[in-house]
Amino acid sequence: MPGNSFGTIFRITTFGESHGKAMGCVIDGCPAGLPLDTEDIAKELRRRRPGQGEAFSSSRKEEDIPEILSGLYEGKTMGTPIAIIVKNNDQKPGDYHEVKDCYRPGHADWCWDAKYGSRGGRLPCQTGRSSGRETVSRVAAGAVARVFLAAQGITVRSWVNSAAGIEIDPSGKTEDANARMEGLKAAGDSAGCIIACTISGLPAGLGEPVFNKLDALISHAILSVGGCKGVEFGAGFAAASLTGRENNDAPALPPHYAASAGGSPATEGAALKKAAFKSNNSGGVLGGISNGMDVFFRAAFKAPPSIGAVQGTIDCNGNPVNITIKGRHDICLAPRVLPVVEAMAALVIADFLLLQRCDRI
Amino acid sequence: MPGNSFGTIFRITTFGESHGKAMGCVIDGCPAGLPLDTEDIAKELRRRRPGQGEAFSSSRKEEDIPEILSGLYEGKTMGTPIAIIVKNNDQKPGDYHEVKDCYRPGHADWCWDAKYGSRGGRLPCQTGRSSGRETVSRVAAGAVARVFLAAQGITVRSWVNSAAGIEIDPSGKTEDANARMEGLKAAGDSAGCIIACTISGLPAGLGEPVFNKLDALISHAILSVGGCKGVEFGAGFAAASLTGRENNDAPALPPHYAASAGGSPATEGAALKKAAFKSNNSGGVLGGISNGMDVFFRAAFKAPPSIGAVQGTIDCNGNPVNITIKGRHDICLAPRVLPVVEAMAALVIADFLLLQRCDRI
Amino acid sequence: MPGNSFGTIFRITTFGESHGKAMGCVIDGCPAGLPLDTEDIAKELRRRRPGQGEAFSSSRKEEDIPEILSGLYEGKTMGTPIAIIVKNNDQKPGDYHEVKDCYRPGHADWCWDAKYGSRGGRLPCQTGRSSGRETVSRVAAGAVARVFLAAQGITVRSWVNSAAGIEIDPSGKTEDANARMEGLKAAGDSAGCIIACTISGLPAGLGEPVFNKLDALISHAILSVGGCKGVEFGAGFAAASLTGRENNDAPALPPHYAASAGGSPATEGAALKKAAFKSNNSGGVLGGISNGMDVFFRAAFKAPPSIGAVQGTIDCNGNPVNITIKGRHDICLAPRVLPVVEAMAALVIADFLLLQRCDRI
Amino acid sequence: MPGNSFGTIFRITTFGESHGKAMGCVIDGCPAGLPLDTEDIAKELRRRRPGQGEAFSSSRKEEDIPEILSGLYEGKTMGTPIAIIVKNNDQKPGDYHEVKDCYRPGHADWCWDAKYGSRGGRLPCQTGRSSGRETVSRVAAGAVARVFLAAQGITVRSWVNSAAGIEIDPSGKTEDANARMEGLKAAGDSAGCIIACTISGLPAGLGEPVFNKLDALISHAILSVGGCKGVEFGAGFAAASLTGRENNDAPALPPHYAASAGGSPATEGAALKKAAFKSNNSGGVLGGISNGMDVFFRAAFKAPPSIGAVQGTIDCNGNPVNITIKGRHDICLAPRVLPVVEAMAALVIADFLLLQRCDRI
Repeated sequence: MPGNSFGTIFRITTFGESHGKAMGCVIDGCPAGLPLDTEDIAKELRRRRPGQGEAFSSSRKEEDIPEILSGLYEGKTMGTPIAIIVKNNDQKPGDYHEVKDCYRPGHADWCWDAKYGSRGGRLPCQTGRSSGRETVSRVAAGAVARVFLAAQGITVRSWVNSAAGIEIDPSGKTEDANARMEGLKAAGDSAGCIIACTISGLPAGLGEPVFNKLDALISHAILSVGGCKGVEFGAGFAAASLTGRENNDAPALPPHYAASAGGSPATEGAALKKAAFKSNNSGGVLGGISNGMDVFFRAAFKAPPSIGAVQGTIDCNGNPVNITIKGRHDICLAPRVLPVVEAMAALVIADFLLLQRCDRI
Repeated sequence: MPGNSFGTIFRITTFGESHGKAMGCVIDGCPAGLPLDTEDIAKELRRRRPGQGEAFSSSRKEEDIPEILSGLYEGKTMGTPIAIIVKNNDQKPGDYHEVKDCYRPGHADWCWDAKYGSRGGRLPCQTGRSSGRETVSRVAAGAVARVFLAAQGITVRSWVNSAAGIEIDPSGKTEDANARMEGLKAAGDSAGCIIACTISGLPAGLGEPVFNKLDALISHAILSVGGCKGVEFGAGFAAASLTGRENNDAPALPPHYAASAGGSPATEGAALKKAAFKSNNSGGVLGGISNGMDVFFRAAFKAPPSIGAVQGTIDCNGNPVNITIKGRHDICLAPRVLPVVEAMAALVIADFLLLQRCDRI
Repeated sequence: MPGNSFGTIFRITTFGESHGKAMGCVIDGCPAGLPLDTEDIAKELRRRRPGQGEAFSSSRKEEDIPEILSGLYEGKTMGTPIAIIVKNNDQKPGDYHEVKDCYRPGHADWCWDAKYGSRGGRLPCQTGRSSGRETVSRVAAGAVARVFLAAQGITVRSWVNSAAGIEIDPSGKTEDANARMEGLKAAGDSAGCIIACTISGLPAGLGEPVFNKLDALISHAILSVGGCKGVEFGAGFAAASLTGRENNDAPALPPHYAASAGGSPATEGAALKKAAFKSNNSGGVLGGISNGMDVFFRAAFKAPPSIGAVQGTIDCNGNPVNITIKGRHDICLAPRVLPVVEAMAALVIADFLLLQRCDRI
Repeated sequence: MPGNSFGTIFRITTFGESHGKAMGCVIDGCPAGLPLDTEDIAKELRRRRPGQGEAFSSSRKEEDIPEILSGLYEGKTMGTPIAIIVKNNDQKPGDYHEVKDCYRPGHADWCWDAKYGSRGGRLPCQTGRSSGRETVSRVAAGAVARVFLAAQGITVRSWVNSAAGIEIDPSGKTEDANARMEGLKAAGDSAGCIIACTISGLPAGLGEPVFNKLDALISHAILSVGGCKGVEFGAGFAAASLTGRENNDAPALPPHYAASAGGSPATEGAALKKAAFKSNNSGGVLGGISNGMDVFFRAAFKAPPSIGAVQGTIDCNGNPVNITIKGRHDICLAPRVLPVVEAMAALVIADFLLLQRCDRI
């Protein structure tokens, strides 16, 4: 499995290079009977379009119209693979030609050459698979997962936690970050960001105890998004400084249940279904298994490596060169990466929801 | 795949509960012809034994003697699956009986009940699969991967970066942390830690560009270790505050090569094989592919949830109870978790080294 | 993995219903650097078009033009997934409407209802995934595998061994079978066939010793083609009546090698690479591993179940009905199934050629 | 996945060489809550022991005592991996030493050398993975699957259809075959056989429509058993000579249901659950999906290649030699292969029963 598929039961395979004909995905294992509409996918794709945040994003116009080629009949999934393609309309490979023979700093150019021995065809088309446009396929596939999750009352929501080192006010006020962003743009520079994400409405029991822990799979999914440099759950890295007493989440009956129980011993089933936890330092995952609390994680993204400022590097022959990367590039992955993060999280959950059906005889 | 296997070509499957007969692993896909000795495995298992750090670890005696059941002939691997078992000698389930019907804070007890509906058999045996002892299998399997890596000049080395919130001096002086640890022990409490890890000697080109990025797989592997709450690569979360200009790693010819080239254009192959990078904010991975620099990551581990102090929780019937967890428990996962982290990293690299053989025609 | 993917390294995922927009496949894991042209695929698709044998096939016109959406640059594979789609132009669902609410004998209609609970949407669109048109995707994917095989001197060739119970003369004279076919057509009936296939030029050592034996995978691949009812290798079912002495294939040096060795002990490596076998009752596979001889297998296909004659069955409400299936249907799967059989065989070999690279350190 | 694992959800991994310490398997994905006893496994292992048919089998004494290392608590599965080992007690490698440097006809010796480059260690230990003893692991794993199936009213039953070319009377009278067997034994020869197998009590809807058809997976499973040369379903190869009209299986309401319906339109659900088929030429599988009828297949096995008669071959240096294979070998794979065939069939069904849970929302 060379890495363009993800998932076990609810399993996606994606394809497409930014400068090729189309991006796309095939979703195998989506259960039959799910109502699904092209608009469910289109609306998520619009969230990742350029121009989401005036100051943050590139000015490219990407009209991403999803086309469902298979898997649906009369508005419902049939249990057969759902293939979705999104044509690439706004290709401007010319912008890349100047740097065609150079290894761009912070990019995977050199790695691709080392891996595939792909001189000549290397730029811009080959690394077009490493382009941010690859996330179109993720968002399209994730949109289907979200519909499946929504049918079970599960929602995935992410937001920008910080950008360019400036914490974003939970109320959504981004003036400070915007100003910083404008300054970076003027200087031909770019900025990193931290995304936070919450998954709500999850049943307890999702995830497998050893290698396929729920958090392990989510981190796999999120770190597979280009530019991600770290993922943490619940208290995360800060948990390393907490003691067991401070960090332990203790189960408890939820208030309304405790009240109604009136002091008498609760029945087993009720306890099992109703237990909550007094704290959520774990981020909703204990021993790799969801505990019914919100799953919460944060992901760090580096600044987009394509910047206008002059950078020194080497060309394909090993000669030192100075390059300037033209074209339309995002100053920051936020906010366009939000639907991508949510899509990947949704795909993990959809898969575990199906796997969970096999836990017991 | 319910989660007890890991890897695609170099693929392991583990089994065993802490209170059962044996822990073990089966390694499928280890290439034929690798010299392997029981001692290669035994020495790694000794590193994860209790008592590694006087102040940090429990006083349990676990004589972990690996037994290779298959896959070897005259000291070399045959290409057939390598099964290794390690018997469980020092079971003391009695220590757990007092908390048998309670959901321990910070543990997966409640989650297991919700997942498998496993009342009665729940404690201590079932969650014995979630026990730290499960890592015996990981270390045994990882030891084989390490031998395979060593044959190619690749080494994996980890160390304690901080413990109980106290940064550990690179020289290895742990006096401050030790004192803190003794205090926590006396108070029936425990401590978290951060582990750092470097993989050296890697070829460029490892990892797959989309879902199976090298860093995504490593994070999957490391977050699957019990107690891990976050993973970051290179500059990690700090990268979110860097600009593209600050963070971009630029390729360069390594000094000795540039010198010998004497100003003349370097030959392509040489450039490809010799390029280095001027910085390593990426942690050795660009676009999910190794760039030939050291891979560097850090992982945060929470404090062990089993503590001696009184904790409030609920029992299986939903009644509030106070519990004290007896028995021999580690105060901190460091330093015993080091060989586990290294084992998981080695397994990822071993798999990618084999997958890389399929990259080109 | 709900079954629309096949292969481990050279792995395909297919999609599409006969009455939907397009059929397609995604090939993940094709090595970089393989010269590939749309015509490589188009020519195989032409071989499975209707009208290949005047008497045998339906009169539908399927202009199957493959469109490569990704994975190629300047005529070579890049190592990225190769997506191919083939539009469905000649849909005539009207032909099916009369039998829309009935379970056609010999078809999967009833099974699909039982599996997906898909009343209403059941016919004709859903079972369009079970249609013979599904093989378009197999042939397209297999065409890429064939190019990979051809680059290594490996060829896959199949022929009609018998049709309608009449053995086909090896010289290809099909007059008797044609006459029989015309009679069946006139009677609104159809015919089964046996396909034989040879894979030549294989290296020894392909296949895995236990569950993924070369023959096990080929049989999996071939029996996954609609209508296949059996597969046998080498002497096949007849081997059950042979004694060990009769059936055993003995290794020998090939004539030219034995001659050149001049009586002196052959060198080890030469022996290893040059050994041939005195007979090939095994069909080129011993212990699940290719032995360097031609792989030979035969596959039995049932008569197409869609026939013009009146048949009794039940409708969706369980009422007995008589139906006549109109439309353009093949009288016999041969010869159109030949490129499908070859495609599936080629896919298995391509995958094992890559896996073989991981056999030794 | 180098081939020592089988299954998607109910997934087994096996290990062990005939001359090593132990054979074994790990079953991952067996649902929690299944009552399981060592005797369930032991009784199946006794069925494959030598000496099952006086005339057919070798005189080796293999006391195969299964030991369950993990996965059980208080007599029930926990959802964790079930590891089972069976020690190898009766190793007599000496018997093989005479042919140590020769490639035995009909065996995989030469193929193993070509694959793993394993000179020196080649015989007898390495090819011990290709030994018939490898099936111990299959039978042990299959025994667990059978318990899971039995809990759902599903049974797997196989019998010897023919041996040494002599059809076995359905009443089980094997005198003719026995006499033939004795003659072959005296002549240092061996015999092939055909096994028939029926799976009863299956729900409709098992199997996936494209690559993972129920029959495709069963044939994969059965052809992975050493010595199997072909598999056919229902009418099998004979179906190739039947017309569509003769071969088509038509759905019908089962008699008792039709009677009770009294002529009024049946309700949908009832029809869906009650439909039967008027014939079973398909062997219980249409379009790769079970139709609720008995699944029926036949498998051809070649004569065991280890025979006492003198055979010509070459040694590792390419020199022609005559060898006689000593030791205790079965004259025929029947009847010892019966529990192996049943085990493999049971494993396929167990996996599909779990996968089926994911078919619908």
